[in-house]
Amino acid sequence: MEGDPPLRLRVFDLNCWAIRYLSKRRQERVRLIGDTLRREGFDLVLLQEVWSEQDYSDLMSRLAGCYPFSHYFRSGVIGSGLCVFSRFPILDTLLYQYSLNGYPYMLQHGDWFCGKSVGLPGSRAGVGRGVTAPLLSLSLQLHAEYCREKDAYLPHRLVQAWELAQFIRHTSKAADVVLLGGDLNMHPEDVGIRLLRGWTGLRDAFAEATHFEGCKNGCTLVPDNCFTDKSELLPFPLGIRIDYILYKATSSFTVKCEELKTTTGTAPGMDVPFSDHEAVMATLHIQRQGQAVGATPGTAGLALADVVTEARTEVAVGLQAAQHQRYSSGRMAVLALLLLLLQAAAALGTLAGLGAGQPFPKLSFCLLAFLALGVLVLATGLHLFHTMEVKNLHGTKEQMWMALRALQERP
Amino acid sequence: MEGDPPLRLRVFDLNCWAIRYLSKRRQERVRLIGDTLRREGFDLVLLQEVWSEQDYSDLMSRLAGCYPFSHYFRSGVIGSGLCVFSRFPILDTLLYQYSLNGYPYMLQHGDWFCGKSVGLPGSRAGVGRGVTAPLLSLSLQLHAEYCREKDAYLPHRLVQAWELAQFIRHTSKAADVVLLGGDLNMHPEDVGIRLLRGWTGLRDAFAEATHFEGCKNGCTLVPDNCFTDKSELLPFPLGIRIDYILYKATSSFTVKCEELKTTTGTAPGMDVPFSDHEAVMATLHIQRQGQAVGATPGTAGLALADVVTEARTEVAVGLQAAQHQRYSSGRMAVLALLLLLLQAAAALGTLAGLGAGQPFPKLSFCLLAFLALGVLVLATGLHLFHTMEVKNLHGTKEQMWMALRALQERP
Repeated sequence: MEGDPPLRLRVFDLNCWAIRYLSKRRQERVRLIGDTLRREGFDLVLLQEVWSEQDYSDLMSRLAGCYPFSHYFRSGVIGSGLCVFSRFPILDTLLYQYSLNGYPYMLQHGDWFCGKSVGLPGSRAGVGRGVTAPLLSLSLQLHAEYCREKDAYLPHRLVQAWELAQFIRHTSKAADVVLLGGDLNMHPEDVGIRLLRGWTGLRDAFAEATHFEGCKNGCTLVPDNCFTDKSELLPFPLGIRIDYILYKATSSFTVKCEELKTTTGTAPGMDVPFSDHEAVMATLHIQRQGQAVGATPGTAGLALADVVTEARTEVAVGLQAAQHQRYSSGRMAVLALLLLLLQAAAALGTLAGLGAGQPFPKLSFCLLAFLALGVLVLATGLHLFHTMEVKNLHGTKEQMWMALRALQERP
Repeated sequence: MEGDPPLRLRVFDLNCWAIRYLSKRRQERVRLIGDTLRREGFDLVLLQEVWSEQDYSDLMSRLAGCYPFSHYFRSGVIGSGLCVFSRFPILDTLLYQYSLNGYPYMLQHGDWFCGKSVGLPGSRAGVGRGVTAPLLSLSLQLHAEYCREKDAYLPHRLVQAWELAQFIRHTSKAADVVLLGGDLNMHPEDVGIRLLRGWTGLRDAFAEATHFEGCKNGCTLVPDNCFTDKSELLPFPLGIRIDYILYKATSSFTVKCEELKTTTGTAPGMDVPFSDHEAVMATLHIQRQGQAVGATPGTAGLALADVVTEARTEVAVGLQAAQHQRYSSGRMAVLALLLLLLQAAAALGTLAGLGAGQPFPKLSFCLLAFLALGVLVLATGLHLFHTMEVKNLHGTKEQMWMALRALQERP
């Protein structure tokens, strides 16, 4: 068993930034990505932000020869943007949509419309002597960070990180190898990443790689890339690392990251980048070992409890803000309703002949009524939305509390 | 091992019909449910339609003595209505919200606002000689059926049944015993139930019970219950069975249903029912056995393929309807936009002095503009909603196709 040759798994991960009509040189880049993937022959390709189904179809027809299996995950208004190409058969898929994903009225950010999710294709990879290992790979994207100093979306991103971690804990138990690739929109030291890694036991390919080649510190948003917004990267002259390949082996397998590479501002051998993000490419060694690996040591429990507490505090802050917004929008709806009732009373009064001598200002009356109606509809919608937000934040806070209790009770 | 005494697990499941201000004699019934649960001392209690957190808190304080562990699942605008009380520690929870759940504009049905979901509390139950079995219990409710002859929600309910089945398949792998209790809003022979049972291998406690006591055919919506709508039950003089306890044992355990009971129109020994639904109570025998049980025999594969095909056809019908509605709402939005543009042109023309001799009909102009604006906003909202619906129905249809392929390739 232990002597079986290891499986060498080559994984490619990229946020493709392929937004129809908005992303620069999109079709050229998608073609370039397709050509590179075909030439390089990875085992597993996890792509994000492929928003157009046409782009996916183009990629699929281009890659059918070397990646016979693929899946496109559909969700939200625009889509999840997630797709997977694989050399191994995809046996099953599952899509989990995060309960919170920004605000529908933040049109300029648009995350809400994307239905951000985690897509899980389950497959089996051959591992020596005809034995196959259930492989669970996840492609995902979390809510973007638009302002690091005053990050209004942090609670939502933390809820997503928590839901993702819980989803992995519950779905990965029967898989021998779990592999996650995606744009987490978090820096390596951020609380969300620490929470995700701590709560699932996933390891960071960049930190574990024996050999690394690419942008310094493994950055995936770099100033050298002609598509990145230079002003956003001013506080980080080397760039930031927000795209990850994470992995873990359960039961009787071990995974080692032999090599990690990133592109460095342009596609290999070209003058145009694949995307505004750099691609991450990992070579993993998966080996069956004789004895099952024991559970994660309990020493990490205390540090993990600190991370969960930190995340829970941030979620509580978000909960307070959401409660405040729910209250404000509710109050606004009530005021608009009162105004409408007042107007209805005035109109009835006029109809009944009160103040018959004065002319009735029909136009301004109508304008005001429509304004009040508009405010009523909008404020009610907002109130319902923030009620859902409060419920979901509250639910996550409780789940985290339950996790803390379980951590404390752990021997 | 095989000689270990079996665990006798007593499970209670009830759709409580506890809607604030709407459900009749709600507080009295919730008190009654609490008293009965305390007296009977079940091991696991799965409740649905507990919409008010106050009712949950009341139940919790009433039941703290005999059910030290409980959880309330929060989601949607109103909530999921799901809660669980347990004699065993609840170690972890996960909530999965179905991607489709009716229409927000069907206010009279209201399912959309409920955030219908499946709540998964993970616990460990003691099974002989200090050995514990991971127990996965699920409490859930699917979209209601309002008209059996012309069931507009069938595709949504099938998407929910499919997502539920996929969720169970992916989360249950490490559990020794999986237990599901809830209001599935489907008759036993309906395609959704056959899909759920076939695709997960769950067994129906009613069909398997050695001893049954309660309403004929295990019905849970019966004419004898004073709260049920008699006209709805006219085609079914005995009532219908839509509340279920389903279970399966994986790995090296067996589960047998020793006894199944339902209430019969009134709470035991009282003249008032617990709810408009009857409660379902099962006594299960869980036993560890020496050898691991083999996989489900492949002979069922063909029948299962037929069920998946049938469900996929219904989803395809729903997809067509959703595509039609997406198109209609999009066209309506475009028409409203054109009307607004036409009005803007007319207003500009008047401002520029054209037709200066004629009086400008300010009031009707304003009324028409607001009407067009209202239609534009509503139609755009509908268009976005139906776009999401199309995406989710399409995604489910594809997943079902993948399942069919996997079934056909199975040896």
